[in-house]
Amino acid sequence: MSFSPDQIATELLHILQPDSVIADPIHMGAYINEPRKRFHQTAAAVVLPRNVEQVQAIARWANANGVALIPQGGNTGLVGAQVPISGAEVIVSLTKLHAVREVNAEAGHMTVEAGLTLQEAHQAADEAGALLPLTIASQGSARIGGVLSSNAGGVQVLAYGNARELCLGVEAVLADGRLYRGLNALRKDNTGYDLRDLLIGAEGTLGIITAATLKLYPKPEGYETALVSVPSPRAALTLFAQMRERAGNSLTAFELIPRIGIDIQLHHGMIGHDPAAGPSPWYALLEISRPKGGREGVLTEGLEAAYEAGLIGDATTLAESEADRTLMWTMREQMSECQSREGASIKHDVSVPVAAVPDLIAQGTDAVGKLDPAIRPVPFGHMGDGNIHFNFSQPAGADPKAFMRDFEEPVHDAVYEVVKRLGGSVSAEHGIGQLKTDLLKQVKDPVALEMMHAVKKALDPNGILNPGKLLS
Amino acid sequence: MSFSPDQIATELLHILQPDSVIADPIHMGAYINEPRKRFHQTAAAVVLPRNVEQVQAIARWANANGVALIPQGGNTGLVGAQVPISGAEVIVSLTKLHAVREVNAEAGHMTVEAGLTLQEAHQAADEAGALLPLTIASQGSARIGGVLSSNAGGVQVLAYGNARELCLGVEAVLADGRLYRGLNALRKDNTGYDLRDLLIGAEGTLGIITAATLKLYPKPEGYETALVSVPSPRAALTLFAQMRERAGNSLTAFELIPRIGIDIQLHHGMIGHDPAAGPSPWYALLEISRPKGGREGVLTEGLEAAYEAGLIGDATTLAESEADRTLMWTMREQMSECQSREGASIKHDVSVPVAAVPDLIAQGTDAVGKLDPAIRPVPFGHMGDGNIHFNFSQPAGADPKAFMRDFEEPVHDAVYEVVKRLGGSVSAEHGIGQLKTDLLKQVKDPVALEMMHAVKKALDPNGILNPGKLLS
Repeated sequence: MSFSPDQIATELLHILQPDSVIADPIHMGAYINEPRKRFHQTAAAVVLPRNVEQVQAIARWANANGVALIPQGGNTGLVGAQVPISGAEVIVSLTKLHAVREVNAEAGHMTVEAGLTLQEAHQAADEAGALLPLTIASQGSARIGGVLSSNAGGVQVLAYGNARELCLGVEAVLADGRLYRGLNALRKDNTGYDLRDLLIGAEGTLGIITAATLKLYPKPEGYETALVSVPSPRAALTLFAQMRERAGNSLTAFELIPRIGIDIQLHHGMIGHDPAAGPSPWYALLEISRPKGGREGVLTEGLEAAYEAGLIGDATTLAESEADRTLMWTMREQMSECQSREGASIKHDVSVPVAAVPDLIAQGTDAVGKLDPAIRPVPFGHMGDGNIHFNFSQPAGADPKAFMRDFEEPVHDAVYEVVKRLGGSVSAEHGIGQLKTDLLKQVKDPVALEMMHAVKKALDPNGILNPGKLLS
Repeated sequence: MSFSPDQIATELLHILQPDSVIADPIHMGAYINEPRKRFHQTAAAVVLPRNVEQVQAIARWANANGVALIPQGGNTGLVGAQVPISGAEVIVSLTKLHAVREVNAEAGHMTVEAGLTLQEAHQAADEAGALLPLTIASQGSARIGGVLSSNAGGVQVLAYGNARELCLGVEAVLADGRLYRGLNALRKDNTGYDLRDLLIGAEGTLGIITAATLKLYPKPEGYETALVSVPSPRAALTLFAQMRERAGNSLTAFELIPRIGIDIQLHHGMIGHDPAAGPSPWYALLEISRPKGGREGVLTEGLEAAYEAGLIGDATTLAESEADRTLMWTMREQMSECQSREGASIKHDVSVPVAAVPDLIAQGTDAVGKLDPAIRPVPFGHMGDGNIHFNFSQPAGADPKAFMRDFEEPVHDAVYEVVKRLGGSVSAEHGIGQLKTDLLKQVKDPVALEMMHAVKKALDPNGILNPGKLLS
């Protein structure tokens, strides 16, 4: 049986209150317009269940009637996992599942519902005197369900891990409406298959995460932050290895920044002044989170040793105030957004083994330079994780549309070829969504793809959960 | 079609060299006798493939002919996952897949085959100047494939995580002989379902792990180790929270030790002298791993603060030498073994939320005391992970067989009832194997069990991989 969009809305009103169903595309803007404006498709309806039982009822109905569901959090995803493809899907927005169920700072965990924003979760942890370390640029809008379904990363993965490593247990509604009760606060539990990690990062194709128990950490006593000039990505890598050995897990961030990214932000007035102490082709943004009772000055000592060894230049800015630190991190977080001020850009969220980052940048820059030397590489990001946002801005003054038409595909091909050669991943933290399903088929181990299809079929036999995403 | 054991051996000789097939039960001792001597069943054959292709050939043949395979590493598992149930199984010993494929200390990873012992993997990391942190009592015999298939834990989980958290990628032969090529050295890779973590901890029921890429860490510059007297588990918990806040991830171990465990070892001459500075009902064994350039004395300062706050007694032994440290850790590692010197003991490998450990010990002790006040509780272990090996030794001088006959089941029931009430797990690190399949059915979320069966069916439709283990 196949419903028309009108019929779908009528049916949904049997399950939900009228104000929980949006049937008119005119009112769907917030749910179907995604950040990069690459996908333009309405939904049959948007529903806003108010509790877990309503999510279960929606799934039961959809599974029985072959209606596709798209679980959605804050609609901040960058690969279109959370927006429609066919137009016949129902978006299940989890925004109304918004409770903080428990915060236990002493025990080091909190249980929150899928619709809480990451920032609200930070605040709840902070008020209880603890740290929820996951930090991403979109945290004011991104919601816990989406953060987990996309296994979000961010700038503190180095020390604390991705969303997956920060999650102790999840609760999820399955395709047929059954509720998987996997919430727990256990650090160790070897009672069967790792269903939690199967649901995390599955982009809503195996279940609808409704709540999660997350790890909390002690708040650091303070931060030591510096923006350091380095002559090359290779020098940055050596600096990373030395600082990591010196500071261990208290080195919580190590980001690579190209000069062009600062110049663009200064040019467009996105930052008040240059956070760097002097010109350099590259910078490293380092942060140490000092535990209670931890010694001060670990960062300074490490940088002095690196300077004496000739590894870094003398243009180092140490954050002397919270304002300095904020400026550095604002600059870092605006690195992606600033490129849109310069016209079109071709983006890649890739990872390689950490030691191969310099090769990735050199070989990728070289390969794209052969296509057009005026294309401006803006590689930046999580060097300590081997994860570079390897973006290319259009030549200054070029026509954005013509640039994308002529170069998007060849630039992708050139970069992914390098990534493949270096044993890397074509999606380090943003996922597959609808953007990269074809790419995935080209680069992923075919047996892994077969296993993924088998798991999908086992847990969602009618294929109603986010069809066409991740696996096509 | 169903083969007799003789036919199975004959068929296997078409795939493998004669010296790779053991068909006579007389020569199977090392493969079928497991540490706790609870399971007594021969195998149809034991095979020792020499490379991944041979493992694939064995699986292809077994899958086509409905022959059950039991993947086996060092045969150190405590729940019988690695030994036969029916007697019709073929044990696939991975001991000959023994290569260190790559060690890259600078990049922080190594790739080793399934048959390497954990200790050999430690040595390979150490020779390259790096640390592989996973540390378990059986590491001289336990092999990487088994360590991963059981998601082993041990004494450094607090800072470094279980086997799962230390693994970047696995290679595995599937039920039908296909090879999943999941080895990689990436810290971030969001290209699909988390198949790695599905295979890890699956006890060989979803695939046969043949190799893995493991994380390496910088070697600590030194250790600060202490055995501290604490009046109660609750005081130990507070000390843990304070030390964790002070030392962060450099606090790499926090173990709870009951006095009786030291007394038993002294009584049986298992340790040369008492490592504790004075009598106390409980001790905490703490260790800080000092990173390069890290400040010395963090442990001492933390203990002084705890003493001044009246949290701990004055009987603290600081390890002044490597010999002191070795004695403390030997005492800890012999804690399980020593109980066999006192006759029978009833064991539970359980976890609860860290904050609930004192309640677990109090309520469990109380419940078992009601059965027979002469039963001696010996709870010990990984307090910082919420994971207690909650063992009960028979009354002194009692008949071991009569004790097990009369008390095994009621003691299990009493302890698991407490664990369940506290939101805990009935198998924190040892797994399910054949020992706990019935228990799992009683305590696990029924939807989780259904999901596990669906995944099993999807990846091993003929049910040839370790049937009857984990899921019955």
